Amino acid sequence: MRSEVELIRLLQQRFPAGGGVRVGIGDDAAVLAGDGRRDWVVTTDLLVEGVHFLRAAQSARALGWKALARSLSDIAAMGARPRYALVALAAPASTPTEWVKNFFAGMGRLARRHRVKVAGGDLAAAPQVVADVQVLGEVKKGKALLRRGARPGDIIFASGTPGLSGLGLACLRARVASVRPLLKRAVRAHVFPQPRLGLAAALARRGGVTAMIDLSDGLSTDLNHLCEASGVGARVYAEMIPAVKVPPSLERRLRTSGLKLALEAGEDYELLFTVTPKAALRLPRQLAGIKLTPIGEITRGRRITIVGSFGRPLPLPPRGWDHFRR
Amino acid sequence: MRSEVELIRLLQQRFPAGGGVRVGIGDDAAVLAGDGRRDWVVTTDLLVEGVHFLRAAQSARALGWKALARSLSDIAAMGARPRYALVALAAPASTPTEWVKNFFAGMGRLARRHRVKVAGGDLAAAPQVVADVQVLGEVKKGKALLRRGARPGDIIFASGTPGLSGLGLACLRARVASVRPLLKRAVRAHVFPQPRLGLAAALARRGGVTAMIDLSDGLSTDLNHLCEASGVGARVYAEMIPAVKVPPSLERRLRTSGLKLALEAGEDYELLFTVTPKAALRLPRQLAGIKLTPIGEITRGRRITIVGSFGRPLPLPPRGWDHFRR
Repeated sequence: MRSEVELIRLLQQRFPAGGGVRVGIGDDAAVLAGDGRRDWVVTTDLLVEGVHFLRAAQSARALGWKALARSLSDIAAMGARPRYALVALAAPASTPTEWVKNFFAGMGRLARRHRVKVAGGDLAAAPQVVADVQVLGEVKKGKALLRRGARPGDIIFASGTPGLSGLGLACLRARVASVRPLLKRAVRAHVFPQPRLGLAAALARRGGVTAMIDLSDGLSTDLNHLCEASGVGARVYAEMIPAVKVPPSLERRLRTSGLKLALEAGEDYELLFTVTPKAALRLPRQLAGIKLTPIGEITRGRRITIVGSFGRPLPLPPRGWDHFRR
Repeated sequence: MRSEVELIRLLQQRFPAGGGVRVGIGDDAAVLAGDGRRDWVVTTDLLVEGVHFLRAAQSARALGWKALARSLSDIAAMGARPRYALVALAAPASTPTEWVKNFFAGMGRLARRHRVKVAGGDLAAAPQVVADVQVLGEVKKGKALLRRGARPGDIIFASGTPGLSGLGLACLRARVASVRPLLKRAVRAHVFPQPRLGLAAALARRGGVTAMIDLSDGLSTDLNHLCEASGVGARVYAEMIPAVKVPPSLERRLRTSGLKLALEAGEDYELLFTVTPKAALRLPRQLAGIKLTPIGEITRGRRITIVGSFGRPLPLPPRGWDHFRR
């Protein structure tokens, strides 16, 4: 198969927006015309055993939590409020009932936290666990935050600590005992990711946000998605990226670095967004309890570059998650 | 794992309706409070390679069609009108792009026929093909047709020819050449099922329908679901069931019968519904081009029985599809 980006382009041609679909395929979620005052925002997100997770390595509770968290993060990225969820779960017929119960208990915990009602679903037997969660949210009419609104001169912000979840996964994979507070936080960020719904709502209320995407595939890939959709370029500064700080000895052991994890690892479910220069000046360093960091600016043209301590901008290709990259 | 019915009961306890969810887990689709005049009807339906289909046996176009048809049938069973679809597709990374294109071409054809807009989706790599399709539909406020409204004395109807799809599958499995018109129709019904949206809309307009479900799991299982939800029993008459008529020689070869296929095979996507005795008298034999046949009546108590040529009612347990039956 071709790359995910190419496949999505095929789908956009076959299924264009219009006829009630305000925003169709290609953003974090679709936007549908609701009644006079609000739009519906809908998303679907797959979680596949052996691809997104190893069942032996994570509890059923954690998987139920994460299956919903991924879709809630898509809703957050649109500046919308989640209302309802549907859950399709396929699992081997030999799966213990207890596992299924715990899966839904984990999902239920996150749903309650964000006042999301699980309204329905589907169950099927399958050779391995596959969960697909849809969330329906709402947003003021015409106010969904899209990937495609970034303009040259806008300032690029990232929330939280990109790479933290990737560090957690690397520790789990390498069986590094997570005794240090940083590693505990990292593993927790990976296993129980927190969708940034409160932050997204606060940003939507403040105004001045021109484009937004969630950091699910790694900053380098998600920044590329945002720029591609907006028809712009970007310049980010390596030293400004609030990447997870990994002690040098651990970087050597894990054969990675904090910056690399932030750019490539994904699953952070933080928000990457652009704001007008004026709004950027007024933006606090922390909003809804989450750290906000300016990391660069939107540029004319289509080049996406990163400026390191070496001074000269280097290309920043998408090195994050792509399901179908050959 | 326990049976599907038990799992669904667990989920109903964990995720009760209320708070905007008018009808939650346990019907063909969920009903959500919309604006003043209409409700939203939403459903999600999994299609798993090796469980619901063998990839080698069916074209990508047919699978794309069927993945959407299953969800549209759920919407039909609620008496609702489908508006939007989301599609999550997991497939091996080695899948040819052409296969994916054809999958979406088949889905697109059915979507256009029923004016459904495909608004978004998700793509992921997985060891085998898994498609999950959500459909959002709408219905007049409070007018969704549920499984739970059947009352003693109501007449039970089935649409079309239950067992036709099962005969098609049996022919495909046994490599029976489908040269006879009946077998051609049967294979077509299995490969390109027609959700009964036109019929459902016509029934909803006429009124008098007290409960409805789609025949996806086989008449015996779906009738059990409807009665369970309504807290009633039922008596059906074997000779009235408009089961597919299979020539005796083929029945022997396939080791099944038309009645058995109708009761147990599933995937017919016909409608099973109950109407008040008064409305039953006014119901034409054909509606929206689809044959309607009375097959029995709703009874007090919880027994579900079938009356055969033997005269005495025999229990009719659910013998259709259950993903998790041990």
